[in-house]
Amino acid sequence: MAKVAIMGFGTVGGGVAEVLRMNAGIIQERLGEEVYLKYILDIRDLSDSPYADRMIKDFSIIEKDPEVEVVVEAIGGAKIALEFTRRALLAGKHVVTSNKELVAGHGKELLAIAKERGVSYLFEASVGGGIPILRPLMQCLAGNEIQEICGILNGTTNYILTRMFQGGIAFEEALREAQSKGYAEADPTADVEGLDAGRKICILSDLAWGREVRPEAISMEGISHITPEDVRLAEANGYRVKLLGRALRLPDGRQTAYVAPHLVPVSSPIAGVDDVFNAILVRGNAVGDAMFYGRGAGDLPTASAVVGDILDILQHRSCCRTLDWSQPADLVDAGDLATPWFVRGGQTGGAAERTLAPGAVMTIPMTAAQVAALQADSAIRVLA
Amino acid sequence: MAKVAIMGFGTVGGGVAEVLRMNAGIIQERLGEEVYLKYILDIRDLSDSPYADRMIKDFSIIEKDPEVEVVVEAIGGAKIALEFTRRALLAGKHVVTSNKELVAGHGKELLAIAKERGVSYLFEASVGGGIPILRPLMQCLAGNEIQEICGILNGTTNYILTRMFQGGIAFEEALREAQSKGYAEADPTADVEGLDAGRKICILSDLAWGREVRPEAISMEGISHITPEDVRLAEANGYRVKLLGRALRLPDGRQTAYVAPHLVPVSSPIAGVDDVFNAILVRGNAVGDAMFYGRGAGDLPTASAVVGDILDILQHRSCCRTLDWSQPADLVDAGDLATPWFVRGGQTGGAAERTLAPGAVMTIPMTAAQVAALQADSAIRVLA
Repeated sequence: MAKVAIMGFGTVGGGVAEVLRMNAGIIQERLGEEVYLKYILDIRDLSDSPYADRMIKDFSIIEKDPEVEVVVEAIGGAKIALEFTRRALLAGKHVVTSNKELVAGHGKELLAIAKERGVSYLFEASVGGGIPILRPLMQCLAGNEIQEICGILNGTTNYILTRMFQGGIAFEEALREAQSKGYAEADPTADVEGLDAGRKICILSDLAWGREVRPEAISMEGISHITPEDVRLAEANGYRVKLLGRALRLPDGRQTAYVAPHLVPVSSPIAGVDDVFNAILVRGNAVGDAMFYGRGAGDLPTASAVVGDILDILQHRSCCRTLDWSQPADLVDAGDLATPWFVRGGQTGGAAERTLAPGAVMTIPMTAAQVAALQADSAIRVLA
Repeated sequence: MAKVAIMGFGTVGGGVAEVLRMNAGIIQERLGEEVYLKYILDIRDLSDSPYADRMIKDFSIIEKDPEVEVVVEAIGGAKIALEFTRRALLAGKHVVTSNKELVAGHGKELLAIAKERGVSYLFEASVGGGIPILRPLMQCLAGNEIQEICGILNGTTNYILTRMFQGGIAFEEALREAQSKGYAEADPTADVEGLDAGRKICILSDLAWGREVRPEAISMEGISHITPEDVRLAEANGYRVKLLGRALRLPDGRQTAYVAPHLVPVSSPIAGVDDVFNAILVRGNAVGDAMFYGRGAGDLPTASAVVGDILDILQHRSCCRTLDWSQPADLVDAGDLATPWFVRGGQTGGAAERTLAPGAVMTIPMTAAQVAALQADSAIRVLA
C-alpha cells in the first residue's frame, strides 16, 4: 500500500481526493497496490468533511511520517507552498503539484533539491490542466528538436474571446458572463492580462529546451483591449482572435517566449478551440505539428493529471525522473520578433498622413516598434 | 554509448536512421550518452547507401551481439517480423516497432515474452504515427476510468473524405488523387476498407482496458460506398463524414470496438481534422475529453515516435514497462450498439411504403439490424 498526503483542500486538493476515491479500483489494478490517502493538510476546520479523520493542520506530521511517499501540493501561491514543498523534498518525499506560479518561479531550485534527494518533483497539471502535454513533450517527442510551442493556455480568456466572437459583445460583458459562470475570478487580472498563460509558456519553454525562462523576463499582453470590431474584422479576413502563449527557438539558437493575442487563421487546428478548452501545438523537426487538446482547468481534469503523476512515481520508484533547467535561456525580446500584423485605424504619421484601411492585415513581417510607429488604434499579431 | 539495430530499411527504418543522425546532438544531450546505430538488417543489396558499412543480411548477427540493446522492427507484416521480434526479445533485447499488424495480432504473445525476459516491447508509433497517444493514455491518464476512445486513425481515408467534401468529387476520383500524391498504395484495400484503422483501435482498446480485442473479432466498414451525395447532405445537416475507429466500455463492463464511417457534428474537434492528419479523442471519467492530433504517417513523424520509445527504454533501463492484455475482452457486437443514423432513400418496406426524406438524420438510437430494415440506399452512423 502506497501512502500519500494532500496539502491544501481546495478545488484541486478536493479533486485529487475524489479521483483517488472514485477510481480506487482501477488505480489499484493498474498499480498493483492500493493508494491510500493518509493525510489532508488544511488550515481550515473541516471536521464535517468525509475525510475528517485524515485532516491535519501541522505540516511536520507529514514531514516526519516515513510512510508518506508522495505529497500533493495544492496550496497554491509561492509562499507556504514553497516552504512546504522544499521541506517535503528535503524529507525525501516525492512532490506532485499543479501550482504553475511555484513551478515557473521556483522550479529550478525545487528540481535541484529533488535531484539531490533522489526524488521526483512532477507538475503535469501545471500546464493545460488535465491535458497530457509535459510528459509527451519530454518523452514521446524526445527525439525531436523542438522548434516552437504555441498554445491557448488560459481557459478564462478563451471563453471571453469565444463569447465576443459568438455574441458580438464587448470584453467587459463577456468577462461578467465568465465570472457568473465561475470561469473567471472576482479579480480576473492574472487571467485577462496574460500572467497565468505567461507562467505556463515559461514552464513549457523550460522543459522543451532545458533552459530557464523567468516569467518576469518575458512580455505578457492580455485581451482587455480587444474590441468587438477587432474580432469582427478578424473574422471577415478569415481569422479568429486567440490569446496565445508562444515559445520559439530561433535559427541562431536563442529563444523567445511571450503571451499576446493573435489572429489565428481558421485553417489552423487552434482556431476552432473554443470556450474554456485549451490546446497546445508543438512543432518538432521530425514529428511536424502535434496538438494536445482538452480541459485546461477544473477540479477533476486537474486531478487527473496529478494522479497520473502520482502513479508514474509509484510505478517507477527505482528510477525517478530528473528534470533540469538550471542554466538561463539566451532570450530575444519578443518585440524584436517580426511577424505579420493586423492593424486598424491609426496613421503612418509624418507629412504624408493616411488612415490605414479598417482591418488591414499587414503581411510584411514587422517588429513591435515598427508597428507602434503606425500609431494604429489597434495592432494584433497574426499567426503566420 | 547505447547501440541499436534497425530491421528493415524501408520508409520507417530509413526515417529512424535519419532522425538518429539529424538529432544526434539533442539525443545525446537528453540521454547523457550517444545512441549508435550499429546494424541495419535488410535483404536488399544497399551497398550504395551511406549506411553501407552497417548493412547486414543475417539476423543472427544482431541476435548474438550482446552490445545491441534495442532493436527497431521496421520489417512490416507478421511473418518474418514476428519471428525476428520473438527471437530478439528471447535474446534479451528491447524491441520497438510501428508494426500495427504485428502488435494487434501478436502483441499478447510478444508482451508475455518481453515480461518474462525483463525487456520492453514498445510500439508508440503503431497508432497515430508521430502523435503521442499510447504513453499519454497509459501514464498521464492512468488515474481515469477510460470510457471511450474515438479517432480518425487512417490518413489515407481522411484525405479521400476531405477531397470528396472540398471538391465534391466521387470516392474513385479522390482515391486516384491520393494514389498520385503517394497517400494511398496501389492496392488501397487495407486503408479504404478499414483494416488499418481496425488494427489501431484494437491496440488502443487492448491498452485502455487491459483486455485483448482481436482484429478479426470486430466489425470494420470502410468508405468505398460513401457517395458525394452523402457528403453533401451531411454538410447540409451540420456534419462532416469521417471514418472513425471507436472503442467503448459499456456500463455493464463489457466492451465494443469497430470501424465505420460516421457523421461527425461540426462542433466536434474531430470534424475539422482534414487531409492526412489523424486525431484521437479519449474520454476519461476525470479528464473528460482529451484529444491528440498530428501526422498519422510518414517517415519522420513515425520515426519520431520510434526514437521516443528508444530513449524511454534507455532512460529507464532499471525499470522497463510491462504492458499486458493476456485476458480476452468481453465483447459486444458493434451492430448491437444503438446510435443515431443518417439515412438516404430506401423504404420502410411492407404495405405502407414510404420513401425516406433525402438526408434524414434519425435521432432515435437504432441498432444496425433496425436500420437495415429501412432498406435505405445509404445508412451512416451519427456520432452523438
